[in-house]
Amino acid sequence: MKQIDLNQVKENIEYLAIGSELLTSAYPETNSLFLAEKLDNLGLRLRYKSVVSDDLEDLVGAVKLALSRSRVIFISGGLGPTEDDRTREAVAQAVKKPLVFHSEIVKKIEDRFAWRGAKMTPSNRRQAYLIQGAEILDNPNGTAPGMWLETRRRILILLPGPPAEFNPMVEKLITEKLELYRNQYVLKSVIKTTGAGESWVEDRIKPVYRLLPRDLELTILASPGEVQIRLTLRAKEINPENERIFNKIKNKIINLLGNKVFSTKGENLEEVIGRELSALGLTLACAESCTGGLLADRITAVPGSSNYFLASLVTYSNKAKTRFLGVPGRLVREKGAVSREVAESMAAGVRKKTGANLTLSTTGIAGPGGGSARKPVGLVYIGLSSPDGITTTENYFQGERRQIKFQTTQKALDMLRLKLKEYQPTGKAGSQ
Amino acid sequence: MKQIDLNQVKENIEYLAIGSELLTSAYPETNSLFLAEKLDNLGLRLRYKSVVSDDLEDLVGAVKLALSRSRVIFISGGLGPTEDDRTREAVAQAVKKPLVFHSEIVKKIEDRFAWRGAKMTPSNRRQAYLIQGAEILDNPNGTAPGMWLETRRRILILLPGPPAEFNPMVEKLITEKLELYRNQYVLKSVIKTTGAGESWVEDRIKPVYRLLPRDLELTILASPGEVQIRLTLRAKEINPENERIFNKIKNKIINLLGNKVFSTKGENLEEVIGRELSALGLTLACAESCTGGLLADRITAVPGSSNYFLASLVTYSNKAKTRFLGVPGRLVREKGAVSREVAESMAAGVRKKTGANLTLSTTGIAGPGGGSARKPVGLVYIGLSSPDGITTTENYFQGERRQIKFQTTQKALDMLRLKLKEYQPTGKAGSQ
Repeated sequence: MKQIDLNQVKENIEYLAIGSELLTSAYPETNSLFLAEKLDNLGLRLRYKSVVSDDLEDLVGAVKLALSRSRVIFISGGLGPTEDDRTREAVAQAVKKPLVFHSEIVKKIEDRFAWRGAKMTPSNRRQAYLIQGAEILDNPNGTAPGMWLETRRRILILLPGPPAEFNPMVEKLITEKLELYRNQYVLKSVIKTTGAGESWVEDRIKPVYRLLPRDLELTILASPGEVQIRLTLRAKEINPENERIFNKIKNKIINLLGNKVFSTKGENLEEVIGRELSALGLTLACAESCTGGLLADRITAVPGSSNYFLASLVTYSNKAKTRFLGVPGRLVREKGAVSREVAESMAAGVRKKTGANLTLSTTGIAGPGGGSARKPVGLVYIGLSSPDGITTTENYFQGERRQIKFQTTQKALDMLRLKLKEYQPTGKAGSQ
Repeated sequence: MKQIDLNQVKENIEYLAIGSELLTSAYPETNSLFLAEKLDNLGLRLRYKSVVSDDLEDLVGAVKLALSRSRVIFISGGLGPTEDDRTREAVAQAVKKPLVFHSEIVKKIEDRFAWRGAKMTPSNRRQAYLIQGAEILDNPNGTAPGMWLETRRRILILLPGPPAEFNPMVEKLITEKLELYRNQYVLKSVIKTTGAGESWVEDRIKPVYRLLPRDLELTILASPGEVQIRLTLRAKEINPENERIFNKIKNKIINLLGNKVFSTKGENLEEVIGRELSALGLTLACAESCTGGLLADRITAVPGSSNYFLASLVTYSNKAKTRFLGVPGRLVREKGAVSREVAESMAAGVRKKTGANLTLSTTGIAGPGGGSARKPVGLVYIGLSSPDGITTTENYFQGERRQIKFQTTQKALDMLRLKLKEYQPTGKAGSQ
């Protein structure tokens, strides 16, 4: 296979998303974000990205344009079985090659349907056509195979649009094919913090700015409940010298931010607490009201969480709080379901009922209704029960229902993280 | 002001986002979603959208390309005061017009700084250059004025990149300038289905394709656990005749798809079942294993869900299944936690313990670990208990952990939806 020297043209990678729906307000295009991240790890960058409709003429035009200005063209979408899916035809036209029917692809699709006890529909046959000369890229998560086509000093990479199919295929391409085109080495670190706002973080790490060498980029990214500091070093090679400077700056930032830092390895909070619970051999259970199951959902998003997570009792009604957690009916009536006392009682109750070493509880007003002057929307009490006793926090979160639920889970997981640090044998931050 | 007849060219609106950061993984481009929504209300559509870097050559190339294929070109970003902000120069070069300094803009920017007790920086003077012939578009939320430029039968609209500045300016343009170009009125409907794949849906509604008038667009959109059919009629006017045809086709599709259709009003499944539970005065509780709280999280995402949702017992460990739901330990040992019998027992148990009218249960293997030849990853049993008894389904879902969890909740909510239909007094589909 003749290889194309990508270094001859600077920044010559293009991404084309196909789909009329991606030109509407309903469907943001996200595949390019995943692709950009993976390419960045090889020191490669997108120079253009575009979205075009399913219209054949537009599609052919966009592919021709990409061929005229880019060496490597990623195209996602339009490989499905329906009549709207015209990427195969469009690329074939643009590169002036015929489509060739592959019966082995039909066989694969039939097997896929059979495995689910279903029969392939006739329209799936459309997916068995490949552009002449293209190599099949296996799609383990869908019926549309991808294609890798080298022609006229260009590489066209056709991939299915659904992220669940696109992402794993890109991952595989990066290690198996694109690694050859690496032109820079990159050192990256994402320092994730919670419990502080963007301006606090920025003020706090100011002393580091004047130490930054030119090839080291620092960016701050804030979202509700989380602020990230991203460090990226790009160099022809990673050597002891630039690695030392990178680590020095990274460690300086970590020190300045103290226990607001929960990960430097890209983990999210549920992964951090999962790792630490496993290491310590401790179990966890939850009692949720306002988070409505989101806390348990995040904890169980981590593979293997069944090793330390016992249960979450999502007690939405007051009766359920009493019945399953033993929260006294009188307490709810006197203090209100949204109160420090009820949060405490929930955390204690679920600990008693499940026998978990540690428990978390949430009760609050997620809105949009249910708020009052004394107990506004966004008021949330969070309880943490451990062998050392119970602690609670009072929080005022902002945003919509979804954001209030999320910030509550973020804070609850963070309370647990800080408690688990106390149990670290060395006393050293276990999250770093 | 001479107006350009936008009707002469179909779908001739283009959006260009400027900024190297928008080509990285950290910054999704969102302005186009807002713009697309506003345009769509006028019957106008984006035909292309693209992102290019701050590189002047790339920028000029992208603007020239847009001029060659589109009548109206929205450009956002690159109007700031720094040297990276090159949109002014690029557009001036592309349309071959000079930049003209406007001292009244400097005055405005100075006033803006003064209002905040600050002094304008010299670099802000860059923002006072307008392309010759352009009209200023006021920016109440920033220093960068926008521009409206009509030239060579094209309209170029330059807007600042930050959404907080871009969005209000678009809003104003829509009512003050673009309303004139309204060329269509729009009727829309989104028919949402679950329980069938994309190709099944397409095959099923084939009879409708030949009935579609030219101005009625039908698109199919699939995601795990959901297939949408989107109908959009665009016409010079909405009159009884085209409205009748629109409704006829919509109803025909609904009839062809039968009870796979769960909403025609944009609702998701949790909203549909929430509305119906409320209307019927029935209560719901869940017993979750493999969904780990996601089912409850979705149900409680609906404001007001506390009126019908009592609790979800997320019993991740076997002991919790026995303790909270009364699932016999022997049953778990003999049949396995992932079995039809345990799903049944969980649904019955949570019904008994909460007193809810209806209950759902989930138990399965979400992966990536824990699968076997006999019980592979993706095998999920779902139980539904109602006053009529208990039903269970055996399902084989595909994808990653997250997708298996989601598809399980989708199927569980759909089982509930179909059961609630039986309780509709008229027997008519309540979801439509």
